[in-house]
Amino acid sequence: MTTPADIVDTFIAAIERNDLDTAMALLADDCEYDNVPIRKEFGRYAVRKTLAPFCDRFDEIDWRVNFQAASGTTDDGVVMNERVDRFRAGERWHELPVAGLFVIKRGRIVLWRDYFDTGQFRAAFA
Amino acid sequence: MTTPADIVDTFIAAIERNDLDTAMALLADDCEYDNVPIRKEFGRYAVRKTLAPFCDRFDEIDWRVNFQAASGTTDDGVVMNERVDRFRAGERWHELPVAGLFVIKRGRIVLWRDYFDTGQFRAAFA
Repeated sequence: MTTPADIVDTFIAAIERNDLDTAMALLADDCEYDNVPIRKEFGRYAVRKTLAPFCDRFDEIDWRVNFQAASGTTDDGVVMNERVDRFRAGERWHELPVAGLFVIKRGRIVLWRDYFDTGQFRAAFA
Repeated sequence: MTTPADIVDTFIAAIERNDLDTAMALLADDCEYDNVPIRKEFGRYAVRKTLAPFCDRFDEIDWRVNFQAASGTTDDGVVMNERVDRFRAGERWHELPVAGLFVIKRGRIVLWRDYFDTGQFRAAFA
């Protein structure tokens, strides 16, 4: 992967197929995962423990990236994107508008921070 | 201004000095200003009508950009940043964590969209 955006694109594609082995391999061991209005997790193990049961609840995951901007290199880069994170359970799609920040160091994601509204989160997943 | 990031940096610096003439000149006439969990405004006039009374409530405005990423050109570009928007009234600083998206076309901002949590917004400005 030659650009910071490649790393984020590959990460998101892996989450969409619920392939957490591939996704977690792109995180630094001590990465920070911050769902801003809810909670932070520290370390790849904690991220997986949060993501796995959430992803497993759904039949299909589709994160639509509307806009993405990137600066720097895979050694020291920043990627931000605006997404709609969509999760299907049976007939119903649960959709959350998100703005995400990914800080890349030495080819891995060291910080993943998603901004969203807890009101929209509750409405989406109620 | 030679890059999309220059446009956003100049825009934010103008808001920080409450110089809305300079800030509004960087918006397209028909720009969209979307405070995601609250409300959208359309057009430069509506943006000013929303921003001016808000900015006027404060003695000092300081938007700290922690991370910023940019892609494209001033003709067709995207800038995203992670900020803490800080507003001082008297002794008290009101602080809101924000992720912002700025879409640039032909040297102007056509879309400004800020992601934040309404719970954090209410706590900051209560």
